[in-house]
Amino acid sequence: MSQTEALTPTLQLAFDLISRHSVTPEDAGCQELMIERLEAIGFTVERLRFGNVDNFWARRGTEAPVLAFAGHTDVVPTGPEANWKHAPFEPVIDDKGMLYGRGAADMKGSLASMVVACEEFVAANPNHKGSIAFLITSDEEGPAVNGTVKVVEHLEARNEKMTWCIVGEPSSTHHTGDIIKNGRRGSLGAKLLVKGVQGHVAYPHLARNPIHQVAPALAELSAEHWDAGNEYFPATSFQISNINGGTGATNVIPGDVEVVFNFRFSTELTADQIKQRVHGILDKHELEYDLQWTLNGLPFLTPEGDLVDACRSAILEATHITTELSTSGGTSDGRFIAPTGTQVVELGPCNATIHKVNEHILADDLNKLTGIYQGVMARLLT
Amino acid sequence: MSQTEALTPTLQLAFDLISRHSVTPEDAGCQELMIERLEAIGFTVERLRFGNVDNFWARRGTEAPVLAFAGHTDVVPTGPEANWKHAPFEPVIDDKGMLYGRGAADMKGSLASMVVACEEFVAANPNHKGSIAFLITSDEEGPAVNGTVKVVEHLEARNEKMTWCIVGEPSSTHHTGDIIKNGRRGSLGAKLLVKGVQGHVAYPHLARNPIHQVAPALAELSAEHWDAGNEYFPATSFQISNINGGTGATNVIPGDVEVVFNFRFSTELTADQIKQRVHGILDKHELEYDLQWTLNGLPFLTPEGDLVDACRSAILEATHITTELSTSGGTSDGRFIAPTGTQVVELGPCNATIHKVNEHILADDLNKLTGIYQGVMARLLT
Ligand SMILES: [Zn+2]
Ligand SMILES: [Zn+2]
Repeated sequence: MSQTEALTPTLQLAFDLISRHSVTPEDAGCQELMIERLEAIGFTVERLRFGNVDNFWARRGTEAPVLAFAGHTDVVPTGPEANWKHAPFEPVIDDKGMLYGRGAADMKGSLASMVVACEEFVAANPNHKGSIAFLITSDEEGPAVNGTVKVVEHLEARNEKMTWCIVGEPSSTHHTGDIIKNGRRGSLGAKLLVKGVQGHVAYPHLARNPIHQVAPALAELSAEHWDAGNEYFPATSFQISNINGGTGATNVIPGDVEVVFNFRFSTELTADQIKQRVHGILDKHELEYDLQWTLNGLPFLTPEGDLVDACRSAILEATHITTELSTSGGTSDGRFIAPTGTQVVELGPCNATIHKVNEHILADDLNKLTGIYQGVMARLLT
Repeated sequence: MSQTEALTPTLQLAFDLISRHSVTPEDAGCQELMIERLEAIGFTVERLRFGNVDNFWARRGTEAPVLAFAGHTDVVPTGPEANWKHAPFEPVIDDKGMLYGRGAADMKGSLASMVVACEEFVAANPNHKGSIAFLITSDEEGPAVNGTVKVVEHLEARNEKMTWCIVGEPSSTHHTGDIIKNGRRGSLGAKLLVKGVQGHVAYPHLARNPIHQVAPALAELSAEHWDAGNEYFPATSFQISNINGGTGATNVIPGDVEVVFNFRFSTELTADQIKQRVHGILDKHELEYDLQWTLNGLPFLTPEGDLVDACRSAILEATHITTELSTSGGTSDGRFIAPTGTQVVELGPCNATIHKVNEHILADDLNKLTGIYQGVMARLLT
């Protein structure tokens, strides 16, 4: 591809990473590519494979404070490749300067910026303060069981701490750096099975219709005001994702109905408080039910402080953009890192096309991101 | 089977019919067995095959009034035969006098009673008044498209009328004859598709959750008092049989939800009135929806009169039981016959085990039923 001749080091590495078919949990060699570059500038690398998932921890320096970059080499599936303008694993920059490819935004572009930023920072500051680290997984988009959470447990077991962590998730909306996520809501899932008594629609007095019974309870759950959020968090939200009841036959009252729902919750509520209130509503409607909860992540928050300040100032310098803080959106691996006491922010490119066909970002935004990451290192480690 | 040596003519014919694997729409030779017996006593038989469904119309006599027996030779599937105490197509009478077999109650037993009752009645009254007729299908338990409804159309086309019709459906609860159905509620089905906007549970402001939107409407439909019924009919009832929404993923707000429901309605309401009220409730909740209606049958009623009187009196004579009239329960082919102006009742054995494993009735109840059918003929045709 003639384009590659003129690529910046960041874009060249982004191309090399995007070219690898690393659909979760495959890493497809992305991590070895990063490791080679990091070892060349003095990082000590620990490869950590858990189950079928490749991870690594890399560190340059032995002193505190530790500034860690965290991210994932895996990408979500492409869907039918025929729906893509450009083959998803053949990165290309179009005539508008847009870089296309699966992972361009989420988050191989960020990984390239992190590595190149470190190369440039270390070249200029071989004797920087503290340590720089990388925590990289290939299981962020999947079950997230053998990835970051296991690496963090491994570090905790030997009391190795990160002071600050920048997760390279695409946090931005219109321009790289316009939003950084300084926290995330908690995610609490539930599977509700409401039990009735199966029967024939012609003999309703011999049956008990669980759909009729659950409907007013769902109406109440949907209308409930859970909290008002706070300075950092939007209001807690309740969403039903799935409801299924019925045998398929049109003359049978089903014996049960299953409802799957999810809370994204602020720091104003605990998971236990939410559970109690849900049980209260279900009990009020006198339902016979079974309810299974899954706590996907607690809310976390990194208030204003040295990490947020360094990010804001580095973004302003590199892009002239004023940054907003946000805690909205989906979960990320930050939920596993923040509980260790680390200040965590997500700072990466625009997220408009992530997980979609024709994933793309403005190519030059990755060059800017390299500058931002370098600026953060300069502020915290020199 | 040594039992069969001592069987009454009714039970012998019931055994012969139950032994045939006539799962809808298969007739498996049941109708030819009946036809042979009816032709032998002077019936003229018209075989009427529509689509893949065997039907016949048989008549003895050319004069009015016409007393018709209606029924079906098909049976519902058995489910896993291993769940049956006795093989479902190998009729057996156990030591408690119970006749086991698929169709014992619904309704090969009744067919045997009808045929034997006619044989005995004709032997005693070769020159009875009016006519006796049979309207038999093998598609009552299935789509009911090429069965009774087509035979009725065929008779109507040549203006051939039934004065009275006894449908042999198992109408009884504890003892044969304790209940006769002198009408049936209407059945109105609907498939509702409520449309929302699909999205991610973490970004509910970009989506519109159709499950949240439909829940209060379903609560209101379930709580609605549709009518109070009347002297002959129980109150109209609304039942949701199926609800399905969601992609299976726990983090996706679905784009739509489908709800299937059914009304069993009395003569106090028309189908149009019900439709209007449902639309009113859905519109009040500002749903974006698509609603498809299926009218399965209008309600019908045969008030007290010569047919009901003859049935009651024949039951009392044969069993010493006082009969109750009822219009509850599921639909039957009576819904196709009544609109031609025919007085229709359903009169057959106990229905406790119909459509279930181990379908059975007291064998001697079929002998009584033969006596009842004969008593009705005596009262109406001599
Ligand atoms: Zn990501
Ligand atoms: Zn039947």
